Amino acid sequence: MVRKYRVGILGATGTVGQRFIQLLDGHPLFEVTALAASDRSQGKPYAEACAWRLSGEMPSGVRALEVAAPEPPLDCDLVFSSLPAGIAREIEESFARAGYPVLSNSSAFRMDRDVPLVIPEINHEHLSLIERQKRERGFDRGFIVTNPNCSTIMLALALAPLHQRFGVEASVVTTLQALSGAGYPGVPSLDICDNVLPFIEKEEEKIETETLKILGKLRGESIEEAPMKVSAQCHRVNVTDGHMAAIRVKLKRAASLEEITDALASWRSLPQELELHSAPSHPIIVRTEPDRPQPRLDRDAGGGMSVTVGRIKPDPIFDLRFVALSHNTIRGAAGAAILNAELLVALEYI
Amino acid sequence: MVRKYRVGILGATGTVGQRFIQLLDGHPLFEVTALAASDRSQGKPYAEACAWRLSGEMPSGVRALEVAAPEPPLDCDLVFSSLPAGIAREIEESFARAGYPVLSNSSAFRMDRDVPLVIPEINHEHLSLIERQKRERGFDRGFIVTNPNCSTIMLALALAPLHQRFGVEASVVTTLQALSGAGYPGVPSLDICDNVLPFIEKEEEKIETETLKILGKLRGESIEEAPMKVSAQCHRVNVTDGHMAAIRVKLKRAASLEEITDALASWRSLPQELELHSAPSHPIIVRTEPDRPQPRLDRDAGGGMSVTVGRIKPDPIFDLRFVALSHNTIRGAAGAAILNAELLVALEYI
Amino acid sequence: MVRKYRVGILGATGTVGQRFIQLLDGHPLFEVTALAASDRSQGKPYAEACAWRLSGEMPSGVRALEVAAPEPPLDCDLVFSSLPAGIAREIEESFARAGYPVLSNSSAFRMDRDVPLVIPEINHEHLSLIERQKRERGFDRGFIVTNPNCSTIMLALALAPLHQRFGVEASVVTTLQALSGAGYPGVPSLDICDNVLPFIEKEEEKIETETLKILGKLRGESIEEAPMKVSAQCHRVNVTDGHMAAIRVKLKRAASLEEITDALASWRSLPQELELHSAPSHPIIVRTEPDRPQPRLDRDAGGGMSVTVGRIKPDPIFDLRFVALSHNTIRGAAGAAILNAELLVALEYI
Amino acid sequence: MVRKYRVGILGATGTVGQRFIQLLDGHPLFEVTALAASDRSQGKPYAEACAWRLSGEMPSGVRALEVAAPEPPLDCDLVFSSLPAGIAREIEESFARAGYPVLSNSSAFRMDRDVPLVIPEINHEHLSLIERQKRERGFDRGFIVTNPNCSTIMLALALAPLHQRFGVEASVVTTLQALSGAGYPGVPSLDICDNVLPFIEKEEEKIETETLKILGKLRGESIEEAPMKVSAQCHRVNVTDGHMAAIRVKLKRAASLEEITDALASWRSLPQELELHSAPSHPIIVRTEPDRPQPRLDRDAGGGMSVTVGRIKPDPIFDLRFVALSHNTIRGAAGAAILNAELLVALEYI
Repeated sequence: MVRKYRVGILGATGTVGQRFIQLLDGHPLFEVTALAASDRSQGKPYAEACAWRLSGEMPSGVRALEVAAPEPPLDCDLVFSSLPAGIAREIEESFARAGYPVLSNSSAFRMDRDVPLVIPEINHEHLSLIERQKRERGFDRGFIVTNPNCSTIMLALALAPLHQRFGVEASVVTTLQALSGAGYPGVPSLDICDNVLPFIEKEEEKIETETLKILGKLRGESIEEAPMKVSAQCHRVNVTDGHMAAIRVKLKRAASLEEITDALASWRSLPQELELHSAPSHPIIVRTEPDRPQPRLDRDAGGGMSVTVGRIKPDPIFDLRFVALSHNTIRGAAGAAILNAELLVALEYI
Repeated sequence: MVRKYRVGILGATGTVGQRFIQLLDGHPLFEVTALAASDRSQGKPYAEACAWRLSGEMPSGVRALEVAAPEPPLDCDLVFSSLPAGIAREIEESFARAGYPVLSNSSAFRMDRDVPLVIPEINHEHLSLIERQKRERGFDRGFIVTNPNCSTIMLALALAPLHQRFGVEASVVTTLQALSGAGYPGVPSLDICDNVLPFIEKEEEKIETETLKILGKLRGESIEEAPMKVSAQCHRVNVTDGHMAAIRVKLKRAASLEEITDALASWRSLPQELELHSAPSHPIIVRTEPDRPQPRLDRDAGGGMSVTVGRIKPDPIFDLRFVALSHNTIRGAAGAAILNAELLVALEYI
Repeated sequence: MVRKYRVGILGATGTVGQRFIQLLDGHPLFEVTALAASDRSQGKPYAEACAWRLSGEMPSGVRALEVAAPEPPLDCDLVFSSLPAGIAREIEESFARAGYPVLSNSSAFRMDRDVPLVIPEINHEHLSLIERQKRERGFDRGFIVTNPNCSTIMLALALAPLHQRFGVEASVVTTLQALSGAGYPGVPSLDICDNVLPFIEKEEEKIETETLKILGKLRGESIEEAPMKVSAQCHRVNVTDGHMAAIRVKLKRAASLEEITDALASWRSLPQELELHSAPSHPIIVRTEPDRPQPRLDRDAGGGMSVTVGRIKPDPIFDLRFVALSHNTIRGAAGAAILNAELLVALEYI
Repeated sequence: MVRKYRVGILGATGTVGQRFIQLLDGHPLFEVTALAASDRSQGKPYAEACAWRLSGEMPSGVRALEVAAPEPPLDCDLVFSSLPAGIAREIEESFARAGYPVLSNSSAFRMDRDVPLVIPEINHEHLSLIERQKRERGFDRGFIVTNPNCSTIMLALALAPLHQRFGVEASVVTTLQALSGAGYPGVPSLDICDNVLPFIEKEEEKIETETLKILGKLRGESIEEAPMKVSAQCHRVNVTDGHMAAIRVKLKRAASLEEITDALASWRSLPQELELHSAPSHPIIVRTEPDRPQPRLDRDAGGGMSVTVGRIKPDPIFDLRFVALSHNTIRGAAGAAILNAELLVALEYI
């Protein structure tokens, strides 16, 4: 029996914080030993501080942990962060400076030139930015690794196998996003009952920029953005969990629908080779029924870590179109950061 | 006081049939005198045959009307039809042959070369196909005029002013469509609660083909399709009424966002000049709030006959993008056919 | 043309405040001349201060009105208040003391012994408490009249005709309440999508106490509570507007279902005699379909001022049971206060 | 490794049929070897015949099973039935006559005097009716055992410990029921979006009668109904799974809230003693948060087999009130029949 890494969670009482705790319950590598939040819950035991909103009971191991302020030191070896963007920059940097590896789901550092924005199946080699980051920021053992925005992860995973095999020139993505993506209390029910909201703040910008970095190439100690164009329109729909996206893609070289389907369905990458604990056996699941994917039926595929793709068809303007779906707080947030941490352990960054 | 035209409604008990009756209640030109349906309701008074599902009471004038079989003769001067596509072709033709003008919301005849597919603000000149239709089909006084699919109407209205002023080369449309578009009983609640359906049968095809005919030019006795490409992906969301569409547009000649906004907001056409009863003063309403249009707040704009457009922005791949919304059973179905009928009266086709 | 009373609205930006403005648009007696709110909107024109969330546009007459702090003096003859309970007590009293009649939808004063809690159809004679109130509190021209909690209004209206004719001994009420009853932002969407909440703070207590005062008798200058027992269990359901209640009633003297139906359906009272502007012709509408009332179909009955009752049946434990429904922000809030004001004008209290 | 009992499922393609298959996947006692349905799916492999609507994939073991007509013989040792009431009576009797134990979720035989209506925690001794049933109907090895209506199961489980310890004289129950209770396609989405339906056919009657039989006593070869009164009002709300009920109870002898809570929370019965596979460790879970139970958070408690009770309070008319919740297609349907079958095996009826 190996000793587990002791982890702290920043933003532990929020929607993503709760998902971190749920996913880490019984995890073979990590054990939650510290919880921090920026709100009035500090000083209370977690069971009292947190209104648990996930199905099933709060894991017993965290019930008695006292919620601390989000500042070092915390009693742990590394931290996961789902802090709000507004305060994440300062706090996450302070943890890295204090020697903690920081696995961040926040948008604060994602586009910084020396910070890896990682999806393990796509761009694990971007982790080599960590050296530059440590050097330039004067970090010692600590560092920051980020995962993308929830919608970007889905888009990037769906595009990656196509980009690798055929080259992607442009992609138009239109999202239908779940309520949990807005956190809690998030979207007022009066705004979404019998309604759709055609606006999610900064979401379109994040998708249009982050995707290019993730699919970009490491050149020396820099990331060269992928030479493609991305257009995003984002909508909030009345669904608890599971972001959907209607996606058109223009390829560099022609491909049949069979080749495209095969590229998506057969795609495996490093996390699958390394058999990382949270890595789904199939990063992308292709369904052939005419009416799939659907949020309620497909969000939990691969333990919430697979992207489900369906309705692959030729498009009158682009080369192809399809619909993608993934669980926005698992693959799109907490699960993304945990998979990054598993990769960092496997590659001995931690 | 002028005598009103006496109208019959085919498919009177359905979702669109009920909307016809609601919109024609107190109409200055038309009076409902006959109701027909293909189902078991035949022979019953409408009040008993129809489970009225619109807010407000069933208009008193139709309560006692007996539901007839959908076959001529009916006691009326013209008919509105919202029959299912499967049976509409035969029945609507039989009414036209029997001398009735048929205003059809069905898809059966929309793409026939001699049948006008009309949105009065856009292509009223297509009505001249009626002469060819009568001649080729051997109709005497009767004829068939169709209105487009509910989503197509919204798209075509939003594109028309841009096409007229700048030329539209291509448009990518991704819809989020309301439940009432599927009729009644339509979408099972278990399929849509906490869910989205990425499939509406034949909808994408209708949008991609009908739009080109509507925006096409009359050449002699034929319609020359508009030289543009349209790509449509369609989704059903948990909203009672009001279709939304995320739309990207590539223009022939460059235009600023101000010019585009002005083209949309200032657009008026023949129905406004003629002051047709159901014509909204503004066919397109442009909103500038960041989170509009929304189905629940904007579907009833202009009495349900205006298309609301918002979020007009430049697009990284196309020239511009925006979000449109319209009431799918008013402007998108019953109201569309009624406006067509008002135009036919004004132009003395009826 | 008579001069209209000039009215101010306290809590003007909230859910009920917006409903006040909507209902008062074009009102024959009242004209909105002052708006006040306790939040950061003070000092801004209403069009800018308020995110209008009702269907249809904000009435043009209020767009330029500057939102004031909720303290006297305001430029008006009387005030409607939908202030939160926490601050209502102090502010409303200050307006009454400054000479303004206060029509309050807040719970702050409802159960005070010298404050009328009025539903015009039921207990208009309770208005004579105003004299005692002025004397005891040292008010000059000002005074406070309250309307009940939204669910209580529905219950009291449904019970009143039965209590008047047969006597009510006990009533068990179980509510299914709409989202708008919680104000804005109110209920988080993540709490109500695919869910029901079995808890509304203080709601059960309000129903169980207010009902007894409303149905109570004026004895001299006091209200003697109605000698009945009320049991309430309250739930929040995923409905925008329209509170529903399943109600059982034990009567003092036996009555047939026909007598009961007649008592409800034929009931008229002072507001109908006086033809008050907001009084529905039928305070209670009885429907006989097996599946009515329903929130979406029946909430707007009588302009939102009628209570719809259906499913009247004998009960194995009580004498009868039925289901009631009414619009919680019209008859249950803003419309209730406005009807009270119309009554006060008609009876020359104002 | 013991040979498993081979089971057939009648009504295998419906909502409850699918739940049977999901719950029996990997079951230690039972193995699905035959599937039957009354619809057009006969003759097709199940994977093709059934549109699987539960989260997760269809179990691989049933994909290739051919859907048979629902008539004996079927290749199995016993059958579970979720046939519609209209056809269940004849078909289920034919299976019993052909020698199959029939575990029925249908309402057809529930109230027959010689048919056990069983909830294993409450009235396992009613199973002795099987002997009478065999004798009177001339069955050989076959017989019919039924489980109650989904709402009745929840009510009876919540009342049973109170009835055993304090005696229940009367209970008023008002339900808020989930969509899956109506089967598929079931409730049209247009009827339930932004709405509540106050009517579920025959549901109130089932609750009011079945409860008395379940809680009744075996006297010789008959069930003497429990001497209590039950009043039920039923509503359909926009929730996928999980029936909720607001319940008032009048007890025979006084009890404190502590005694009541203890009676509910500490209750164990025969299925727990026998450690039946599907028996939850706690048949009733008492929660003390002010806003629980909730369908989305509590329906899966105890694997969907526990009833969650909260908001236990004194009541002004009855002795106490509380809110109960249980999973309507697990504890309320498929899981109920499976637990009955496990009990029959343990007691050697099978």
